Amino acid sequence: MGRRLYENLKAYSESDFYPFHMPGHKRNPDSGQISELYRIDITEIDGFDDLHRPETIIYDAQMRAAKLYQSENTYFLVNGSTSGILSAVSAISSNVGEKLIIARNCHKAVYHAAFLNRMRLCYVYPEMNSEYDIADAITASQLERAIVAALEEKDQSILPQKEGKIAGVVITSPTYDGICSNVEEIAETAHKYGLPLIVDQAHGAHLGLHPEFPENAVCQGADLVIHSVHKTLPAPTQTALLHRNGNLVDEEKLRKYLRIYQSSSPSYLLMAGIDEAVSIAQEDGERRLSRLLEYRKYLLKEIKDCKYIRVCPDTEPGKLVISVKGSSLTGQHLYDILREKYHLQMEMASGTYVLAILTMMDTWEGIRRLSKALIEVDCELCGSCKEALPIPCFYVLPEKDLELWEAFLSSAESIELQEAQGRTVVEFINLYPPGIPILVPGEKISKELISMICRYQEYGYTIQGIDGQKVKVKKEESRNA
Amino acid sequence: MGRRLYENLKAYSESDFYPFHMPGHKRNPDSGQISELYRIDITEIDGFDDLHRPETIIYDAQMRAAKLYQSENTYFLVNGSTSGILSAVSAISSNVGEKLIIARNCHKAVYHAAFLNRMRLCYVYPEMNSEYDIADAITASQLERAIVAALEEKDQSILPQKEGKIAGVVITSPTYDGICSNVEEIAETAHKYGLPLIVDQAHGAHLGLHPEFPENAVCQGADLVIHSVHKTLPAPTQTALLHRNGNLVDEEKLRKYLRIYQSSSPSYLLMAGIDEAVSIAQEDGERRLSRLLEYRKYLLKEIKDCKYIRVCPDTEPGKLVISVKGSSLTGQHLYDILREKYHLQMEMASGTYVLAILTMMDTWEGIRRLSKALIEVDCELCGSCKEALPIPCFYVLPEKDLELWEAFLSSAESIELQEAQGRTVVEFINLYPPGIPILVPGEKISKELISMICRYQEYGYTIQGIDGQKVKVKKEESRNA
Repeated sequence: MGRRLYENLKAYSESDFYPFHMPGHKRNPDSGQISELYRIDITEIDGFDDLHRPETIIYDAQMRAAKLYQSENTYFLVNGSTSGILSAVSAISSNVGEKLIIARNCHKAVYHAAFLNRMRLCYVYPEMNSEYDIADAITASQLERAIVAALEEKDQSILPQKEGKIAGVVITSPTYDGICSNVEEIAETAHKYGLPLIVDQAHGAHLGLHPEFPENAVCQGADLVIHSVHKTLPAPTQTALLHRNGNLVDEEKLRKYLRIYQSSSPSYLLMAGIDEAVSIAQEDGERRLSRLLEYRKYLLKEIKDCKYIRVCPDTEPGKLVISVKGSSLTGQHLYDILREKYHLQMEMASGTYVLAILTMMDTWEGIRRLSKALIEVDCELCGSCKEALPIPCFYVLPEKDLELWEAFLSSAESIELQEAQGRTVVEFINLYPPGIPILVPGEKISKELISMICRYQEYGYTIQGIDGQKVKVKKEESRNA
Repeated sequence: MGRRLYENLKAYSESDFYPFHMPGHKRNPDSGQISELYRIDITEIDGFDDLHRPETIIYDAQMRAAKLYQSENTYFLVNGSTSGILSAVSAISSNVGEKLIIARNCHKAVYHAAFLNRMRLCYVYPEMNSEYDIADAITASQLERAIVAALEEKDQSILPQKEGKIAGVVITSPTYDGICSNVEEIAETAHKYGLPLIVDQAHGAHLGLHPEFPENAVCQGADLVIHSVHKTLPAPTQTALLHRNGNLVDEEKLRKYLRIYQSSSPSYLLMAGIDEAVSIAQEDGERRLSRLLEYRKYLLKEIKDCKYIRVCPDTEPGKLVISVKGSSLTGQHLYDILREKYHLQMEMASGTYVLAILTMMDTWEGIRRLSKALIEVDCELCGSCKEALPIPCFYVLPEKDLELWEAFLSSAESIELQEAQGRTVVEFINLYPPGIPILVPGEKISKELISMICRYQEYGYTIQGIDGQKVKVKKEESRNA
């Protein structure tokens, strides 16, 4: 399979070749405080292949990744999972007005892709796990109901038939919180209707690499799978992989979009980083993931006598949903204490929990510090009689006024949230964290939603899209115009 | 203006904070052969701001860049100039079917942006400099003719009026070869018609930083300017800047698209690299560019007695178009000799020249080696009676059959180039280098174009989009269908 990308870059950096080409730092050590990086930062010179038309060393590197995940084609992404999602959704889209069935808790990039392709969104709403306040898995039967509804809607549609067509299905598994759906059943259901399944597995590049972890979505029958390499493997931020399998997605169309959404000067640092991570996962991934399991087991054992603090058992092992529900503490408080007193930086805080990520690169030091900190914090906790927050945003379903792309491009005005009842939003209103949309551009704000948003704010959640209690809505056409 | 991004990252890397967050390498030195990079590779944790909603350290860094280029707003780009071009063109587009006036030799990303926004392209064709076989500048009067023609066409259009609207103008200055257009006059002309001007100045991030270099396009009145930082400044590959000025481009719409086309996990390595380059340019750019001018002067003096080899005097100082026209050598031969015998890696080879890039990071060693090599090569050259290649592709103007987006999405078949006369291509046919489109998707292949393509191939040019003498064309509808 040839040398790793890094080894090629290193050998070149040690040669006497002088660069009369980009990049402008010319590998000169006088290029500022990060010039050490530039030693191996080159562009597509002879012998170094081309990400957008790979034939030699990048081709080999992508093949190594395809082999690891047992995929037919694998593509390196230097613009993150974002570029993989944009390319995947674009590749299954062919006409304006097509439908895309997505889990409502998909990443914003999925909505952006639907916008760029002028697709109409149909949602599958996950159930909520009310013990831990996180979204549950998507089920095959939920998906089937959504497909049937979208097909039936076609008959009543005023659009020409081909515009009512369903382009495909997108789900996120695992979620940010670590909840995995049964991709195998979901893929079967999608395929039964001839629909391609895209799995945003940004948080699961480590899945399938160890028998005690869930299988990866490529092996479970998904047509397109996106893996963030940097999220759970040892790779630089902004790196990802896109896998293509089966006969439902046109390989050439996919490549076309990858060339559109990614820099024509892709970073060799990032590509070498992907290759390193793939090689480590291939050669040593199982051993390192066993270590992760040991860490998790140790932590769970250490904190098992805590009164309030507990870890959700339903996630894949790499995620720790550390709940303080029922105690006097909020997720944000716990996050702040861990950060300020213990110098432990969590991934995020939500209403009643903090999220920690374990990867194959953790150390005993970190795990011991976290266990000790949680025990100490728990000792000082007492119960709360505070009314529980009515769980996230899937219970008040908004009414759609405009398609996403119409709303995104329409003239807007900023008005007070309290006066917005019945108006159509033109920006995402997101509950952050975890980043789930309460309202998608084109949906109407109801009275119930306004009071729900206010309650979230009282509970300390950030609501993206609300700026100083103002919200952007579609301009109402003047009656005199 | 605060500390540089790098200094913040370094200070954090030296703290005792333990990461229970992404990236997965956890700054652990056991993360493979490039783990040294990971020390300062983090994600949007507390205190490190957010590229997509910058308020603190990234905001400050962008302000430093805005100050350097005297721009109202400046945005860091981690997906290269590509993402800047996609965002800029998208931000000035509002309806399907709008026109975009572009220089025909624009980068492919401009075409991609027009495709994504379903825009109709109108071209300004640069003249050719036949002494050096490179495209000349675009002039204000050429642009004005194109605007008038596009406006007149509207009246005859069958499309509703608003669809015939012109969204704006895009030019490239300097070109890849280093030719600068008079952006001031061109901006005046565009503005006279109320049109925003986008200048792809990917190759000119160093302009305006030294009195002997051309001014930068921000100061010349362009509304949106894209600078690749990595091309001519000491910055990592895949980094760029986007500047916005004036009242013709909606700032919020622009930001919206920047969030769409760029990773939601932007690399702090790349952002710190941009900030370093801006700081160096600010603090020491003029002195370093004086050194570049000295290098250039030295080289020109050294090779002034060469019989055949000469350097085009019309480019900005950072580009060396080293011509062998009239000799027995082709550009590719010279490129190969410099690379194989002298270990001097050029930027690219074209028919009769090679292109070398000088930046503020070159060294005397490189310049002396190049001067010496050129003198030696020239000594062995003799004249050629070979018929000159009929200069690039702007003389046979293709006929348009479909709009770009219609062609890009239509069903295709591969046929022999020789049998393609009259057919509509669905892929770009590019002369590479320098990457100028001979045919844009939607245009028809004429007999003249087929023979021109064959002649280019005989002269050793690569023609992208022709695969083993086959070309992708729109499928003809079967008469029985």
